[in-house]
Amino acid sequence: MYGDGLFETIAVRDGRPCLWSEHMARLQAGARRLAIPCPPRARLYGECVAVAAGCQHGVVKLVLTRGAGGRGYAPPQSPEPTRILVAYSWPVHPPEWADGGVEAILCRTALGEQPRLAGIKHLNRLEQVLARAEWEDPQIAEGILCDGRGRVIGGTMSNLFLVAGGRLLTPRIDRCGVAGTVRTLVLARAETFGLEPIEADLRLEDLAQAEGAFFTNALIGAWPLRALGPLRFDLARLPSALITGIRRLAHHPTPEELA
Amino acid sequence: MYGDGLFETIAVRDGRPCLWSEHMARLQAGARRLAIPCPPRARLYGECVAVAAGCQHGVVKLVLTRGAGGRGYAPPQSPEPTRILVAYSWPVHPPEWADGGVEAILCRTALGEQPRLAGIKHLNRLEQVLARAEWEDPQIAEGILCDGRGRVIGGTMSNLFLVAGGRLLTPRIDRCGVAGTVRTLVLARAETFGLEPIEADLRLEDLAQAEGAFFTNALIGAWPLRALGPLRFDLARLPSALITGIRRLAHHPTPEELA
Repeated sequence: MYGDGLFETIAVRDGRPCLWSEHMARLQAGARRLAIPCPPRARLYGECVAVAAGCQHGVVKLVLTRGAGGRGYAPPQSPEPTRILVAYSWPVHPPEWADGGVEAILCRTALGEQPRLAGIKHLNRLEQVLARAEWEDPQIAEGILCDGRGRVIGGTMSNLFLVAGGRLLTPRIDRCGVAGTVRTLVLARAETFGLEPIEADLRLEDLAQAEGAFFTNALIGAWPLRALGPLRFDLARLPSALITGIRRLAHHPTPEELA
Repeated sequence: MYGDGLFETIAVRDGRPCLWSEHMARLQAGARRLAIPCPPRARLYGECVAVAAGCQHGVVKLVLTRGAGGRGYAPPQSPEPTRILVAYSWPVHPPEWADGGVEAILCRTALGEQPRLAGIKHLNRLEQVLARAEWEDPQIAEGILCDGRGRVIGGTMSNLFLVAGGRLLTPRIDRCGVAGTVRTLVLARAETFGLEPIEADLRLEDLAQAEGAFFTNALIGAWPLRALGPLRFDLARLPSALITGIRRLAHHPTPEELA
């Protein structure tokens, strides 16, 4: 009734979830923030693998809600969380997006600031639904969202990174935005790509002046940004190993012994 | 999956909904804002009466969602909205609250500002769940919420009104907050109670200096505020006809010819 829960959208390869550790870390952080008891990781891993059975290349969406309760906003005294796991086929995108880059628009919808909910992947996603409804053109891959003060926060379904002067910049997500699993991974590994990772308040000027930019999420891995409205980016200026390296890290199945 | 819908919590008397016109006006405004096709009022009235059949004194919750769609945030091309109507028993509160007033707390949870969603009764209600979880004491009737800039917005499940110098003040709800059905009615009828209705930016100082204050919603009608933490209000300073008058207006069943 109230979007009172969390979700994870998990890439599956060879019947196994990718980025399992990052997904579980975020789910557990969200559950703590919302005071929803989180089922044990091993149980969720088993359920994910069961739902993904026989899937070479797909998606499992895991939803965790506070469970059944009364009519009002008061949470139940002893919540029994509900788990919903659904398998989906792998989303099909134009093949040139992965290496040739994507076109994005700047959304008019501005994100509200709510530090209590920022970073976690909760189910109150009307802002994203409104933003995604701003375009229908299938050539547009993503929409970029700012907060009400003009700070760039990310895509409707992805995080955004800028490369500038040996630095890898990404928006802070402590007032709005989501701590993407690939975002976490890229920040942790930035130095192996020869880049200094920095979380910062970024504006559209920073994006316009960057050498390059890319979107990340668990399904796309990384998509270079080719065009944002009239703004064009020269993909040759993005470190060539970066995008393919991120994709390789993001789409590596997690074996049971590491789950 | 995304709280992508709207709801109305409707008082039922003698098998008929109260404040039908106000509930439908808000539902239709919310549906326009979210671009969800709204079923005809007459159909919803019939369904509400059917669900409330034989109910002398109860509640019907009406939920309208965008309906089934794909995995991502893109809304379906031809949405077929889902209607959910559930009957609940009338909530039991200590009988002295209605005339003797209620005790409230000031919530630590601050509301985020999102003009695109302000006013409508959408299903993204995690802020209210977090705020309502701040107290368990059954003697506390309501929690008062401010926005991040310290402006008072209302209760977790109600609107707030202040009486001061012949004026009836209530917070603006164009950045956050909900346009309560009783709030709408009270603003429209304020002058019949000899008060000038004013929507304003209000702060806790305004509340502390008011002659009196009360909460409104479709189920409680109106509850005078007796105590907010250490702050006490002299209920004798609230116009005596106001609270009972609001309750009478709020709990009047809507006959079919006016639906």
